[in-house]
Amino acid sequence: MDPDGVARAFVEHYYRTFDGNRAALGGLYQEGSMLTFEGDKIQGAQSIVAKLTSLPFQQCLHHISTVDCQPSGPQGGMLVFVSGAIQLAGENHQLKFSQMFHLMPTPQGSFYVLNDIFRLNYA
Amino acid sequence: MDPDGVARAFVEHYYRTFDGNRAALGGLYQEGSMLTFEGDKIQGAQSIVAKLTSLPFQQCLHHISTVDCQPSGPQGGMLVFVSGAIQLAGENHQLKFSQMFHLMPTPQGSFYVLNDIFRLNYA
Repeated sequence: MDPDGVARAFVEHYYRTFDGNRAALGGLYQEGSMLTFEGDKIQGAQSIVAKLTSLPFQQCLHHISTVDCQPSGPQGGMLVFVSGAIQLAGENHQLKFSQMFHLMPTPQGSFYVLNDIFRLNYA
Repeated sequence: MDPDGVARAFVEHYYRTFDGNRAALGGLYQEGSMLTFEGDKIQGAQSIVAKLTSLPFQQCLHHISTVDCQPSGPQGGMLVFVSGAIQLAGENHQLKFSQMFHLMPTPQGSFYVLNDIFRLNYA
């Protein structure tokens, strides 16, 4: 699969899992993974899942506007840059966001998230 | 200097150069550098500068809202994620944007931009 195809498949999988069963995102991170969520720095799969599952909303739906990707260097990593909007249950307005992922290959031929940075785009 | 300090110094330098003398940004890229600008993929310092200097506006001023950074792996790279707004000369409204940079160390102890992805955040 071409890099753009991998990036799109990852993005679809990530947000479908986020919207359906947030705790299952833990399988995408490892011990050295980093998340910066609205400026909060969190490290390690377990802490990242604890952060994501403790966000102050339950149901949500991500709408993806753009997905850009680039190879990140000789180690076979890939940078994925996403823009979109989140619809929270019970809220009229969507929240726009930007997020980047640095995916690294696993020995099993898949990818895990080494870096994850998330920001809401306030109007 | 701590990573956050390096990231902030880079961001200030980058946008000050962009707003003051866009052609001088070439020194921050190398032959293997990649820029994805609103979905357009460009590779190499010379082509990247050609793209940036041919954008359909002359004077502009970047306002930075947030800067996040993370180390990108064992090679000493750094991911820098920026949100902000651009004021174009003669326009009333600012354009909001998000941009990410993957900085890699040079033998001289500085950094160059390996990856650069830019997106406007349309309202």
